[in-house]
Amino acid sequence: MAAKKKVAKKKTVRAKKEAPKNAFYAQSGGVTAVINASACGVIETARKNKNKIGKVYAGRNGIIGALTEDLIDTSKESAASIKALRHTPSGAFGSCRFKLKSLEQNKREYERLIEVFEAHNIGYFFYNGGGDSADTCYKVSQLSKEMGYPIQAIHVPKTVDNDLPITDNCPGFGSVAKYIAVSTREASFDVASMAKTSTKVFVVEVMGRHAGWIAAAGGLASTDDTPIPIIILFPEIEFDQEKFIARVDSMVKKHGYCTVVVSEGVHWPDGRFLAESGLKDAFGHSQLGGAATVIANMVQSELGLKNHWAVADYLQRAARHIASKTDVNMAYAMGKAAVQFALKGHNSIMPTVDRISNKPFKWKVGMAPLSKVANVEKMMPNNFITNDGFSITKACRTYLEPLIKGEDYPPYKDGLPKYVRLKNIGVPKKLKKFVI
Amino acid sequence: MAAKKKVAKKKTVRAKKEAPKNAFYAQSGGVTAVINASACGVIETARKNKNKIGKVYAGRNGIIGALTEDLIDTSKESAASIKALRHTPSGAFGSCRFKLKSLEQNKREYERLIEVFEAHNIGYFFYNGGGDSADTCYKVSQLSKEMGYPIQAIHVPKTVDNDLPITDNCPGFGSVAKYIAVSTREASFDVASMAKTSTKVFVVEVMGRHAGWIAAAGGLASTDDTPIPIIILFPEIEFDQEKFIARVDSMVKKHGYCTVVVSEGVHWPDGRFLAESGLKDAFGHSQLGGAATVIANMVQSELGLKNHWAVADYLQRAARHIASKTDVNMAYAMGKAAVQFALKGHNSIMPTVDRISNKPFKWKVGMAPLSKVANVEKMMPNNFITNDGFSITKACRTYLEPLIKGEDYPPYKDGLPKYVRLKNIGVPKKLKKFVI
Repeated sequence: MAAKKKVAKKKTVRAKKEAPKNAFYAQSGGVTAVINASACGVIETARKNKNKIGKVYAGRNGIIGALTEDLIDTSKESAASIKALRHTPSGAFGSCRFKLKSLEQNKREYERLIEVFEAHNIGYFFYNGGGDSADTCYKVSQLSKEMGYPIQAIHVPKTVDNDLPITDNCPGFGSVAKYIAVSTREASFDVASMAKTSTKVFVVEVMGRHAGWIAAAGGLASTDDTPIPIIILFPEIEFDQEKFIARVDSMVKKHGYCTVVVSEGVHWPDGRFLAESGLKDAFGHSQLGGAATVIANMVQSELGLKNHWAVADYLQRAARHIASKTDVNMAYAMGKAAVQFALKGHNSIMPTVDRISNKPFKWKVGMAPLSKVANVEKMMPNNFITNDGFSITKACRTYLEPLIKGEDYPPYKDGLPKYVRLKNIGVPKKLKKFVI
Repeated sequence: MAAKKKVAKKKTVRAKKEAPKNAFYAQSGGVTAVINASACGVIETARKNKNKIGKVYAGRNGIIGALTEDLIDTSKESAASIKALRHTPSGAFGSCRFKLKSLEQNKREYERLIEVFEAHNIGYFFYNGGGDSADTCYKVSQLSKEMGYPIQAIHVPKTVDNDLPITDNCPGFGSVAKYIAVSTREASFDVASMAKTSTKVFVVEVMGRHAGWIAAAGGLASTDDTPIPIIILFPEIEFDQEKFIARVDSMVKKHGYCTVVVSEGVHWPDGRFLAESGLKDAFGHSQLGGAATVIANMVQSELGLKNHWAVADYLQRAARHIASKTDVNMAYAMGKAAVQFALKGHNSIMPTVDRISNKPFKWKVGMAPLSKVANVEKMMPNNFITNDGFSITKACRTYLEPLIKGEDYPPYKDGLPKYVRLKNIGVPKKLKKFVI
């Protein structure tokens, strides 16, 4: 016992002497089925490089954890728990919706970040998020230059919206795409069985307020060997009620049924979302319905066709049980690459997925400067939507198909997936309280 | 070649001489993720008993196929296709919502059934459905007695509503229960990550207009090792807005977030469904929203809590990708038992799942007389809902848990489940047209 204690003491002394910089990691924005796989990649890779990276401190609730000095000591988690992050959806450390203002507008917040980083010897900043988070990460990456604090800030791409530029796709998207493609196929089989005497139209509302990436994934449900009559309503295309109703009518006449995949962002020519179309409750209060409700009611009133509708909402982005293996692998690889790039001295960059070929699908890890990522939204290419505005093109299919490939099932216990909950033990605070 | 032909001819002659009776099989009511597994059980078992059962003719769209002489020759399907039914959701032969009237009210339909059965040498009638279908099957089973036509009618239990009596549970329910339990757990993890700065309440609407079986399954998402703050709104409990809002408030204050599982059948004390609560569009037309929308808007207006809501609808009952292995096995076993019971000479019965023990979970195939099944609805026992009306009891959990156990993944191709579509080749018609 005594000998052991001595060794431990010795180690501590040495650690203090050569102490490598610690890393800060946080999750930001809407979480996904695989953002924790990126966390797993970051932490496991950092643990393999203990001579260069000390501890990984996770921000409790994203950047807020950094501002409030609410840091989680991930070294308190077992290797098994960190490994289990790979198959656990949601954000294990808590996420946030919080965008740093510019240095000019809120210098106080940046000074606070530096104060916290200094107090905890943080030299690496890994931020895992989408477009807004890339902006935050970019601002942090400028701290070295602007305020003389040496930090390497690296953005780890994540968003179901698939709207980050340069990277081939965003981890998180592939799994939502797979969920929507699988669910659309399953529900279409269902409505086809019912169509003779009952439901003829099935409507499913999917995420994607600005870009139709997720809606497009619904189109994958129909393949050459399993064709399905699907109408997609993209946010990129102004909603034309007459044309839409005519299409439903002709599809049902031809196939006996059809499925409508409607993006939450579908809007009228004047810009109003379908979901905001003036529903009022008994007291005259405006109510927010969903786009699916509006479409379903329209199909009923215009064509008299019995229909059913679903709104997938969080179910789609949390559905780790049907995650895409490709997506999980990419999410992990992005986390791993972020640490490796940091160790090579990079700052202000984001690892990317670079597609090499479609058939066979090959990709490699690339790198993009954050200056070209922050605040840039990648829209669907025009040639991904058919001319009639209701379907995906072959080019779109070629792009999407590899992203949903492969299954990566979580372990189960008693019929339920075994998702890990970390201990999330806080790092003792050293500073005064900070009010955001 | 010549020799072969001779043998074939000989066989035909013999078949004609001893021709065993053919079987009629049909699917009825709302389809499920595993009703085709029952079809698989029926057809595979019949194929193993070709000396006693000739061909299995499936009704195109349920009993309608029998009335209109629209029969499908399942012998034209390969063994591989029939086997694939086991992992394919929906109703492969088409389903229907059609209830036969009583013999007194519509003798013409029964005479037609006999006409079709005679024309196609049908002596076995297998009907795969829920409560209404059990009634139809029961009426057919009386044809021997009432109209002198020898037929053995056997009901194969199926319904996501889990409301058939006598049987421990109904195939189809276990898989929906698993889907809801898994999805509720996943979405709860999601909202927990977001709660600090964004969504605090997640609402998911599930099926079950009269009984809260499916809503109860949402409660399974929370276990001792993974507790989750869940509020269940059962159709069995009159909705009390004040009490509900107070519960949400206290849960969010205590845990930071909560999940609400609301049955589509939840209603006000006066009987009105929440989903019908007077929503009107811009033109003053009544609109049917969902119960989830109403609950979400209520949480927003009463507590000012940001929330998200989902409506699972067909996605839940079609979700073969996350079917319960227990459920799939039971569905197959019910189909197999139906044929075996028929071969033993039974009529007017339904195979049942008889639970022997909970831990370890053991069950066997039993048998119930259709007279005691038709038009009897099994409600949730009172002791399955906690006194406050918002949760499931230990007794409920003990009942539900085994039903969601085990995974039974379908095969995949290019990221999508490979579900079979049968050729569904029609049997040549012999009779005049019949108008329903």
